[in-house]
Amino acid sequence: MKVLVLGAGQLARMMALAGAPLNLRISAYDVNTDAIVHPLTQHQLGTGLAGAIADADVITAEFEHIPLPVLEQCQQSGKFLPGSKAIQAGGDRRLEKALLERCNVASASYRVINNEADFKQAIASLGLPLVFKSALAGYDGKGQWRLKDPAQAQAVWQQMADFLAADSKQAIVAEQFIGFNRELSLVGARAASGEVKVYPLTENHHVNGVLSVSLARPVSKPLQQQAEQMFTAIANGLNYVGVLAIEFFDVSGNLLVNEIAPRVHNSGHWTQQGADVCQFENQLRAVTGLPLGNTELLRPTLMINILGEDTVPEAILSMPGLHLHWYGKDKRPGRKMGHINLSANSPAELKARFAKLIDLLPSAAFPELEQMLSQLND
Amino acid sequence: MKVLVLGAGQLARMMALAGAPLNLRISAYDVNTDAIVHPLTQHQLGTGLAGAIADADVITAEFEHIPLPVLEQCQQSGKFLPGSKAIQAGGDRRLEKALLERCNVASASYRVINNEADFKQAIASLGLPLVFKSALAGYDGKGQWRLKDPAQAQAVWQQMADFLAADSKQAIVAEQFIGFNRELSLVGARAASGEVKVYPLTENHHVNGVLSVSLARPVSKPLQQQAEQMFTAIANGLNYVGVLAIEFFDVSGNLLVNEIAPRVHNSGHWTQQGADVCQFENQLRAVTGLPLGNTELLRPTLMINILGEDTVPEAILSMPGLHLHWYGKDKRPGRKMGHINLSANSPAELKARFAKLIDLLPSAAFPELEQMLSQLND
Repeated sequence: MKVLVLGAGQLARMMALAGAPLNLRISAYDVNTDAIVHPLTQHQLGTGLAGAIADADVITAEFEHIPLPVLEQCQQSGKFLPGSKAIQAGGDRRLEKALLERCNVASASYRVINNEADFKQAIASLGLPLVFKSALAGYDGKGQWRLKDPAQAQAVWQQMADFLAADSKQAIVAEQFIGFNRELSLVGARAASGEVKVYPLTENHHVNGVLSVSLARPVSKPLQQQAEQMFTAIANGLNYVGVLAIEFFDVSGNLLVNEIAPRVHNSGHWTQQGADVCQFENQLRAVTGLPLGNTELLRPTLMINILGEDTVPEAILSMPGLHLHWYGKDKRPGRKMGHINLSANSPAELKARFAKLIDLLPSAAFPELEQMLSQLND
Repeated sequence: MKVLVLGAGQLARMMALAGAPLNLRISAYDVNTDAIVHPLTQHQLGTGLAGAIADADVITAEFEHIPLPVLEQCQQSGKFLPGSKAIQAGGDRRLEKALLERCNVASASYRVINNEADFKQAIASLGLPLVFKSALAGYDGKGQWRLKDPAQAQAVWQQMADFLAADSKQAIVAEQFIGFNRELSLVGARAASGEVKVYPLTENHHVNGVLSVSLARPVSKPLQQQAEQMFTAIANGLNYVGVLAIEFFDVSGNLLVNEIAPRVHNSGHWTQQGADVCQFENQLRAVTGLPLGNTELLRPTLMINILGEDTVPEAILSMPGLHLHWYGKDKRPGRKMGHINLSANSPAELKARFAKLIDLLPSAAFPELEQMLSQLND
């Protein structure tokens, strides 16, 4: 079976690796160059979306910021899963917030801002502090503003006004600031039959707005059930097929959805070693109609992103439970170059291994890990 | 780093899959067609061994029946690991038996047979019953004869004489028949530093001379130590670098080496799910000079070969702990098309899952599994 992935980055690459043992042939469409490539070898297989669509049995996506004409062309083929509606909901904060409302899933109150009047009304109705997020192409902390002090309102508005003026398609979503204890995410899969299987909740640590560490270990059942109910409501609401990721704020045991990603997700990379069947394989199983694989935790596992570095000390490979995943990319500052998965037989052993790993890694390239380690006491 | 594999079959393919996350680029030399291909996509990258050798950082092999000129050309490059001596020892039964003698490793007594006088002397000195094996290209039960009854000696000799007459390079190795309880194998890796890491002993079940099931579960420590000592003796004797497999006869707790395979091995495929770091990754780590990975048993796992079939019931994918590995090959009777790995949290759970799997698999395509299941009581 042939699967076409929109996007030719590391997520498509890891899908190709997970799909090969199932005899699934993965090709990737690079929306920037119009090239069809093999996502592992980057060997060019052709050019042009129309031919690639015709050649594919199923089409899916590795990211949500895809030009509308591409989405529409894929949608018209009848082969596109999870489909353009789900991808757009992940790529446009307005649609995403409306979806969450429609699905009756708890999330920060919000207003859409297109002009200064909207801005003022958002402050009046939601109060301060507020977080403002660009509606389109906002991720990894880009296109975000905060407002706490009313005296700063005009200055913040001016930045946002410039931002809106630069792109007529943009808008800004104002949201009530949520004072959360931690950020969690739930990655799971929904099959065409409606069957849902979710991985355990993952705890995420960001540095400068970019995911640094994701930690999967046994979680409290009520919290997991809460997350799974919200996942199911959203996935059913979209009639979703594939892997879906939901990011939560944990406010003293109550979950609020921060955002959704209609695809395999960085916070699910730990599943390659820590779960029975990884998110990449389950994504492919879902969209090709194969039975979903077991999503249970195999062993406590954490994932550390490698940002802007193309080497790590080789000695870390001697550590039991450690797996290195490079993406075959050229080095660029801040770029997601790969990740490390670290597993152990118990949470305590994982903590000990994490401490040892931190000693081996250069702290400049891997900041704030010590701090995350200390939080593992909690 | 670029690794060239001699042979472009499923073992090279699984090395490519294991090497990608380490940013190792694997290409494969097809000794039959002189083509250089990507072992996953089978995309042709070039032609000719000389250029491929020049382009590679390291050369290794996925099989041992490689023409001598190819081996010599690779050896001369100084990049070939485990090197032509080890590959030849695996591909020529005469060299293999001499190696085992030299390393002081227990193995069936033997004589080399080139003519009828050798044949008669083998019977006289070793006694009956005897097993005769072709010196070259004998595996999966091909090129083997047995002699129990002296009255059949002339008939058996005639078959062997015809066999020898057809190929002047061939010889036959006569071996004392070993009445063994079971066949075991040990897969392990040796680094250039001399470090050795072995996986747990695997129990192998053959049907018609072809491996059908390999089972890895906790083994008795004395038996494991015995195997590891023999492994280390052989690997050190060859100054081996890479993954090496050793097949044993278990005679009431005493191990005799049956044969060695200087490569990743079918009886080690279970390591993809059952061990921390799989044999394919450890092969690449060894030959590229990276630290060897942890070889401990993660969870009891068995592997079932898929022979001559290109489909299995999709329902098996619903089973927890089940992983399917297809090789992307065209269907041919008896051909190794893929394998199933089945894991569980305990030997008892593995047995229960195996029973369930047997119910789902067509018995014609997967013969004798019931019988193997019943032996799991032992």
